Amino acid sequence: MKVYLDNGTTTPVAREVVEAMLPYFTEKFGHPIFPYTPGLEAAEAVERSQRIIAGTINARPEEVVLTSGATQSNDMAIRGVAYANRHRGRHIITSRVENPSVLRVCERLEKEGFKVDYLPVDKEGFVDTAELERRLTEETILVSVANVNDEIGTIEPVEEIGEILSGRREKVYFHVNAAAGYGRVRVDVKKMGVDLLSLSAHKVHGPKGVGALFIAEGTPIEPVTYGYISMFKLKPGTENVPGIVGFGRAAELMAENFGRDVAHMRRLRDRLLSGLEEIPYTVINGPRGEKRSPANVSCSFKGVEGESMMLHLDLNGISVATGSACSTTKLQPSHVLTAIGVKAAVAHGTIRFTLSRYNTEEEVDYTLSVVPRVVEHLRRISPVKPEQL
Amino acid sequence: MKVYLDNGTTTPVAREVVEAMLPYFTEKFGHPIFPYTPGLEAAEAVERSQRIIAGTINARPEEVVLTSGATQSNDMAIRGVAYANRHRGRHIITSRVENPSVLRVCERLEKEGFKVDYLPVDKEGFVDTAELERRLTEETILVSVANVNDEIGTIEPVEEIGEILSGRREKVYFHVNAAAGYGRVRVDVKKMGVDLLSLSAHKVHGPKGVGALFIAEGTPIEPVTYGYISMFKLKPGTENVPGIVGFGRAAELMAENFGRDVAHMRRLRDRLLSGLEEIPYTVINGPRGEKRSPANVSCSFKGVEGESMMLHLDLNGISVATGSACSTTKLQPSHVLTAIGVKAAVAHGTIRFTLSRYNTEEEVDYTLSVVPRVVEHLRRISPVKPEQL
Repeated sequence: MKVYLDNGTTTPVAREVVEAMLPYFTEKFGHPIFPYTPGLEAAEAVERSQRIIAGTINARPEEVVLTSGATQSNDMAIRGVAYANRHRGRHIITSRVENPSVLRVCERLEKEGFKVDYLPVDKEGFVDTAELERRLTEETILVSVANVNDEIGTIEPVEEIGEILSGRREKVYFHVNAAAGYGRVRVDVKKMGVDLLSLSAHKVHGPKGVGALFIAEGTPIEPVTYGYISMFKLKPGTENVPGIVGFGRAAELMAENFGRDVAHMRRLRDRLLSGLEEIPYTVINGPRGEKRSPANVSCSFKGVEGESMMLHLDLNGISVATGSACSTTKLQPSHVLTAIGVKAAVAHGTIRFTLSRYNTEEEVDYTLSVVPRVVEHLRRISPVKPEQL
Repeated sequence: MKVYLDNGTTTPVAREVVEAMLPYFTEKFGHPIFPYTPGLEAAEAVERSQRIIAGTINARPEEVVLTSGATQSNDMAIRGVAYANRHRGRHIITSRVENPSVLRVCERLEKEGFKVDYLPVDKEGFVDTAELERRLTEETILVSVANVNDEIGTIEPVEEIGEILSGRREKVYFHVNAAAGYGRVRVDVKKMGVDLLSLSAHKVHGPKGVGALFIAEGTPIEPVTYGYISMFKLKPGTENVPGIVGFGRAAELMAENFGRDVAHMRRLRDRLLSGLEEIPYTVINGPRGEKRSPANVSCSFKGVEGESMMLHLDLNGISVATGSACSTTKLQPSHVLTAIGVKAAVAHGTIRFTLSRYNTEEEVDYTLSVVPRVVEHLRRISPVKPEQL
């Protein structure tokens, strides 16, 4: 049996999405820059996707820029707003549990003379909003917090943050990296009070190489990348038209099936969580219930080495992640697990299972039949005993 | 009849390329970051494309970074090398006829305190290499010249430039934007003596949203975009695996059919050129014969308005460009035509026809049956008489 439980890293592209893209490779392959038939077809397709995506986040189409992915969206948003507002101040606030695609950009800005505060989180991963209020100064120009933590599934209080920021006399721009949250929780830029929001297509059954950045009208922002301008001022270069069409279709499917998909994922999540909890010396990371992403299950199996576990599950046809996709190249324990207080030795035994609309109960049951065996085997060969941790 | 003669702007994706990409959307959809089966499949696919693309330009695979397009490649190359070498000098040389994706980056660097010299060209568009030698100083760190001009098809003396630069005591890095030249002329990074070379997939029947940057080993270069690093240090973000697979397949097809395709395009080009020359008051822009891209035909029809001509040809099913794809949003005459001395009034009547391996003799003959009628019609309604220009 093949069971893909790493939908937090990337998802299979939906059949409907591939079908929607196909004509744009070989028939409607024009470049949107010219007002001739192939160009108009391409421009219309891009604008249609822009409308669909904007609709799913309660934005206006012209507020959505199509990018080459959420990583580019985050870079454009954070550096773009930082550069455009540096005359007002050089202080940025983010959290300790952000995705590396946000943290690397913040570190870059620190090298350029910006001051970045990294908010602490509680043991379930919730950002400390009281601390946010304390850290805000007249120099603060930007706050960036993800709506869902991609490692442990914490649904962050972004609406509360939006409210805190809206009460400030001096405008503080609010960026939300919604790559992990889109399709898992409702995203409404107005309710959230955000000025900028990053999206990724390949996390919602769209293609890789496409993302979007919502920029509320009137937000001062500078480009961070240069070249010839086609349809989007901040994103030079030829539009990835088939990819954009695919993202539009994926967003449409996501919105149409949202309630059903979320309920389905939540059912599977809770079934998986309950089963895994029965394994001795197992810790669930992140919150329970409504405040947890319906798609996320993160477990630390004490006395188990995470990467060995991933490989053993792979041999059984099950794909899972160790930590988040974006922080695996280094051997240090995940910065997210460290931030919620998980000891390094325990963090090393962490596996993240992430669900999608295409997973089934049978797949969860098969996984629950395999995991305990693997955990037992790895604990037998481990020099560290789980009861010592 | 539908005749697409704008392959310099973008090309239809080859059927073989779409077929190669398809499994990577729905079956082999993994993220290369994890060493489990879906990740290994993805990483192997990316590495295979890297090997193929490197082979087509006589580079080593590890010298090829996959990007989101030639625009990103140009930005990475030019700003990346400029930043990494600014301690040695802040002087850059390029030409007046580069693509806007190079010029916009140079203009950005000028704002940041770099000095950029724009080399003149002769009336056929050849860069003045004697002038290049005169402008080189001890402060010069980078030269950027395209191997083929995308508007008028001039094949630039890049090997000669490479030789001039290799004779300098202080290293001057050499960047070539080969987006328009790849698949039209031989590209050999060693023979050309280049340190950096930009490629685009969608100009050679690959998908939009993918490009490559060759960076010779040992070239000092800084990132210009930030985020989490997956397979490529300079290009953060999730790899566009299906797009990269498509680029690899397109590069393979290009290399396999190179001699035949070039001969085919050259035959069609000369047939089209001869036919168009018979139209009175018509000027061919750029050189003839071997020194012209086999895929490019650029004509100025005196007393004709280019955009009207494009739209009238479109009504007849023929897609052509006015100037280059990347300089159409402004109403000024093309910077390339201005640089070769074409008067503004004549430049406005310029049409670019660009061929691919998929064009046929019938298509050229059909085009030649339509163009004279359209030219005659537009001249009849024009207030400017061709003989006055």
